[in-house]
Amino acid sequence: MTEKLKKQVPAGAWDYLPEECAAKRKIENEIRDNFLVSGYQEIETPSFEYYEVFMHDSVPYVQENMMKFFDQQGRILALRPDLTGPIARMTATKLLSEGKVFRLCYIQNAFGFLNRGIAGKTEFTQAGVEMIGKKGADADAEVIALAIGTLLKIGFDGFKIELGQVAYFKGLLAGCGLDDEQTERIRALVDAKNNVELEYELSRLNIDTEKKTALLELGSLFGGPEALERADLLAENDECRAAVENIREVYDILCGFGYEKYISIDFGILNNFNYYSGIIFRGISDGIGTPILSGGRYDELLREFDADAPATGFALGVKELLVVLERQGKLPKLSGKTLVVRTDRKHMAAAFSYVQKLRESGKRALLELSDENNYDPVLFETIDFKKEA
Amino acid sequence: MTEKLKKQVPAGAWDYLPEECAAKRKIENEIRDNFLVSGYQEIETPSFEYYEVFMHDSVPYVQENMMKFFDQQGRILALRPDLTGPIARMTATKLLSEGKVFRLCYIQNAFGFLNRGIAGKTEFTQAGVEMIGKKGADADAEVIALAIGTLLKIGFDGFKIELGQVAYFKGLLAGCGLDDEQTERIRALVDAKNNVELEYELSRLNIDTEKKTALLELGSLFGGPEALERADLLAENDECRAAVENIREVYDILCGFGYEKYISIDFGILNNFNYYSGIIFRGISDGIGTPILSGGRYDELLREFDADAPATGFALGVKELLVVLERQGKLPKLSGKTLVVRTDRKHMAAAFSYVQKLRESGKRALLELSDENNYDPVLFETIDFKKEA
Repeated sequence: MTEKLKKQVPAGAWDYLPEECAAKRKIENEIRDNFLVSGYQEIETPSFEYYEVFMHDSVPYVQENMMKFFDQQGRILALRPDLTGPIARMTATKLLSEGKVFRLCYIQNAFGFLNRGIAGKTEFTQAGVEMIGKKGADADAEVIALAIGTLLKIGFDGFKIELGQVAYFKGLLAGCGLDDEQTERIRALVDAKNNVELEYELSRLNIDTEKKTALLELGSLFGGPEALERADLLAENDECRAAVENIREVYDILCGFGYEKYISIDFGILNNFNYYSGIIFRGISDGIGTPILSGGRYDELLREFDADAPATGFALGVKELLVVLERQGKLPKLSGKTLVVRTDRKHMAAAFSYVQKLRESGKRALLELSDENNYDPVLFETIDFKKEA
Repeated sequence: MTEKLKKQVPAGAWDYLPEECAAKRKIENEIRDNFLVSGYQEIETPSFEYYEVFMHDSVPYVQENMMKFFDQQGRILALRPDLTGPIARMTATKLLSEGKVFRLCYIQNAFGFLNRGIAGKTEFTQAGVEMIGKKGADADAEVIALAIGTLLKIGFDGFKIELGQVAYFKGLLAGCGLDDEQTERIRALVDAKNNVELEYELSRLNIDTEKKTALLELGSLFGGPEALERADLLAENDECRAAVENIREVYDILCGFGYEKYISIDFGILNNFNYYSGIIFRGISDGIGTPILSGGRYDELLREFDADAPATGFALGVKELLVVLERQGKLPKLSGKTLVVRTDRKHMAAAFSYVQKLRESGKRALLELSDENNYDPVLFETIDFKKEA
């Protein structure tokens, strides 16, 4: 067993061999460049944090999914399950100043025993942004537009961003007197679009008939502006109406940017419900059954770090993007041969200068001083420097 | 305590805030580009491996320094203490083919409770290369030349690469009948250049006087070619003579490349003794008290994975490089302001197109739909699109 494990990659993690790594780096660079020109500044946080960073009342992380270990002082460290928590910690303690807006981005790995995204993954690269310090539909629309623009940049087309609004669901349940467990059961059934069980669950609860109707309809409140109209009609209170108004504004701005075809509304999206406080969204694409991105507004999170700032953001799953691009035959390929400059000790000074010049001009080149010649002619082109000189 | 930890970065790890992160990314890109044009292909391995990957007889890792945790099946995972072990695992199991040479590179984080490099660091970025499948001084010289060329590329000058040879020390001790513990004590005293205690230690052992003299002289066998002459005179057997011959060849090739001023020989360098099998080297620089790089030949490691291939490589400490560049005032700085294009809902379609064009031309630009104006004029330049249009 032990001998077998020695030669294996841990379950849910990947080796990126040269060709795939080059493709990954190219996609990551395109994503990074797009984030940077859009005014977002890159940051890095450690791969692990003190466990306390992820222990919140308002925004709970799923504790059993986290990879945890002890430091030499016996404190618990946890490999970060996402970047949002660490960036909230960093921004709240080191950057935040009254009224300022911080646009941050990252391409970093996150960790956990997870079944979201690619099933069973344990380490995964996320490319994302967080906008901290700004409220409003224009801020939400900005990050969603950035997600769409980034997908277009790396060659995606058959994708949709599904927009939901957790505040609408929260508004519907306001004043129903449900406890956390009941709320969670209803949320899970709506999110799974399981109306049979949802109807049974609701029948056991003492809730107004109008509310039950609205909750049962949530899963079918999707599509274009007509879903907004219907949601407005079902809206029970100011909280619900404000939620509809917010998603309508975001929708209108994105349509104004020419992104109508990439958006659909779905009030039934309620994943990561506790995490988010307003609009939530996820990206789905041809060629993969799991979301390629997810995001939303999380105005409560920074309070965990004694700061008060609204925030919104998203994260793209880089492996998921690579899977789609590969299935669509769009994965960037390495091109050109590596030049092998062969020479002997007598000519090595001049040959080394020659190789350095090739490299400075951007060519891949290496110097071969020995007689070995096991270079695959498909990948390498040999130059005999003794003859050249 | 818990509340305090929530706002702290784990000991030995760092947040890279925007300015430092941009500098880090720039340096990393320069390093990567230099590795790639030199014919090395980038790879990635997971941040953690099954613990077994690091449990070797021939090449022991320091077990108590590793960060370990359990997976959901109760198997031990260890955050990688370096990239060399994982790359050996990957190459042996997925790439290696008879007679082929693999030139691989990486920029990845490694982990551990360490006191090498920057004291106490627990997560650190390493940029390195591994050449697998090639023996000989020309292969050793190639990677050392790449280390030097890379340092020059990122603006270093006041640095030296110290070359040592563990095979010489091993040759001196061959046939002395010392056990592992005695060998380790002598190694540590030579490496620390502690000749007072070394003399006492040797006096207790039954070793030839000539050998004792040679061992006591090891710590002062440094400098240029004269150190090679002296080592040759002290050489006891073929193993020692071959070790001197190897380091002489490497030295000559590097001088042939014009790198004489960056090299010094030091037979007293015996760090990571068990890891390496031949030439070892480390880089020291003005502006920092700990090595900025280390490397060497490790021909035994791939056998741990049932493969047989000679190998050599090095790793640069990216944080160490940043520290030096900062102290020397050479840290790259962010330049230019971010353009803020202000507009209203009526003009937003045209303004968004305008912003997208700015971004395509490489400018950092963002669209501001609200009336908020808290943009620091040092960092941002505002354009009023309503007037422009």
